[in-house]
Amino acid sequence: MEKYVLGIDVGGTGTKFGLVNKDGKVLRSNSIPTRQYPEINEFCDELCERMRRLVKDEGIEMGNVAGIGCGAPDANFYSGCIEYATNLPWKGVVPFAKLISERMGIKCTITNDANAAAQGEMIYGSARGMKNFIVITLGTGVGSGIVIDGKLLYGHDGFAGELGHCKIDHSGNGRLCGCGQKGCIEAYASATGVARTAKEIVTSTTQPTLLRNVADIDHITSKDVFDAAEKGDLVAKEIFDYTGHLLGQKLADYVHFSSPEAIILFGGLTKAGHWIMDPIREAMEANLMPIWKGKIPVSVSNLKDSDAAILGAASLIS
Amino acid sequence: MEKYVLGIDVGGTGTKFGLVNKDGKVLRSNSIPTRQYPEINEFCDELCERMRRLVKDEGIEMGNVAGIGCGAPDANFYSGCIEYATNLPWKGVVPFAKLISERMGIKCTITNDANAAAQGEMIYGSARGMKNFIVITLGTGVGSGIVIDGKLLYGHDGFAGELGHCKIDHSGNGRLCGCGQKGCIEAYASATGVARTAKEIVTSTTQPTLLRNVADIDHITSKDVFDAAEKGDLVAKEIFDYTGHLLGQKLADYVHFSSPEAIILFGGLTKAGHWIMDPIREAMEANLMPIWKGKIPVSVSNLKDSDAAILGAASLIS
Repeated sequence: MEKYVLGIDVGGTGTKFGLVNKDGKVLRSNSIPTRQYPEINEFCDELCERMRRLVKDEGIEMGNVAGIGCGAPDANFYSGCIEYATNLPWKGVVPFAKLISERMGIKCTITNDANAAAQGEMIYGSARGMKNFIVITLGTGVGSGIVIDGKLLYGHDGFAGELGHCKIDHSGNGRLCGCGQKGCIEAYASATGVARTAKEIVTSTTQPTLLRNVADIDHITSKDVFDAAEKGDLVAKEIFDYTGHLLGQKLADYVHFSSPEAIILFGGLTKAGHWIMDPIREAMEANLMPIWKGKIPVSVSNLKDSDAAILGAASLIS
Repeated sequence: MEKYVLGIDVGGTGTKFGLVNKDGKVLRSNSIPTRQYPEINEFCDELCERMRRLVKDEGIEMGNVAGIGCGAPDANFYSGCIEYATNLPWKGVVPFAKLISERMGIKCTITNDANAAAQGEMIYGSARGMKNFIVITLGTGVGSGIVIDGKLLYGHDGFAGELGHCKIDHSGNGRLCGCGQKGCIEAYASATGVARTAKEIVTSTTQPTLLRNVADIDHITSKDVFDAAEKGDLVAKEIFDYTGHLLGQKLADYVHFSSPEAIILFGGLTKAGHWIMDPIREAMEANLMPIWKGKIPVSVSNLKDSDAAILGAASLIS
């Protein structure tokens, strides 16, 4: 009798969920808009109802679902709770794993979304066969999942791997980050950070750039910067160069800490391809001790975008 | 029948060795001057001869010695070798564990000196009962031993925990470090780094300071700076403040990585007491994410100086 797993990826905008078979294939998936459920119980009712329907539509008995894995921002593996999430509608401490387990009658395991991504890479993606690696997610924020000796690193309190909040500017005048600190790498090397850099240049300099053609500068995206770079825009290239160098400097620090076999990048900003990857690699290499130079590959996840988050969550169930 | 362990601490100047009982008491110890043995086989011959004598003098049969633990700079736990050590007389890759095992007929386990210090803290010192903590050694250099889930972190290649070579200056104009890079924290926050800062201030400014009374400015030490601070010298206090702030900023990064229960400092520079510890703690706190503020104690090792290195090495044998 084949076993299946449900994977949930709770995001600030949408929550994706899917049914995964033992070969890591997403058989069927769907999503609901997170923001439309300001009340957590209503959210869980709807999510569980939809997951039951998904399993039924695939013609599978609920008894064949071995478990539910969930990745969510600010989720704590030890407590099973989402704690003080800044980008979700529910305030304070939400016992998410318990709320889902009770409704589904199946054990639910939760961890933060970057940890889920790292677990997914280890089971299904670029890190298959690796026991020591780091996944950095470059989306709205900068997240990280660290694998040591084949296991996710949780640390003393379950919150290890907040690499996005290591600082690249200690002057006290760095950019304000969502965590309340100033100068975190997240405020620069995320997709949002690239948009902020672009807006700063467009509004505070007179440098000629295609980015001035973007209709609404307040909503410029890293995709706009990529499109401009592809057209040869020098300012757009400089933005990626600046961003990549900052991130690469921090990656060298992380190598000095845990000596990983590889670093895998994931998320929206990686779509900028070589424009961002070249400066990242260059700056990391320039800041590594000689024993590591040329030895630590930095690559982009090879998991399919639409499946990766669900697979990562599902991979928590072994 | 009680079992004993031999511990060896290979240092740039002297190599200490001692016989340790199961309660972690150093029964008897001695040392030889490392630099007097430019040939590794002569060094090992002398060291092993001295260790045999030590065991005999304590009235113990060699058959009751369960193992030999060794801490050394640039030692690799996986390979058992000391590799390209910058502060030892032997060049290239030295199969140290093998050389000692062969001579003594007892298994020898080797790791880098900061890892040995961390193991010692876990078994005998400030970290008893902890499963996740970081030891930073502040001596000639800045070393680190990282414990994750009760085990020393070695990473993919055995070299994890080179935190002294994370940079605090990416300008390219930072201080030259022994590793060949510029701007490493080791070049600032070691005992040597404090001496460099003191020399820079004395030779390039006209600030009045007791440090100008030091007879030979080229050989000023962190102890001289401490003595001046104790006498109320403002420049000396500024030096510790500057040094502590740089180190504290990096400690915050390390917390964001592995979420340790505590950070323990060890080595010569910690003798500066509150002059260095206060700015370290202040800068770390100022750079931590809110979830960790006020939760991560930074303390000084409680192991007796003379025993700590031998105990750390001995603790590798369990």
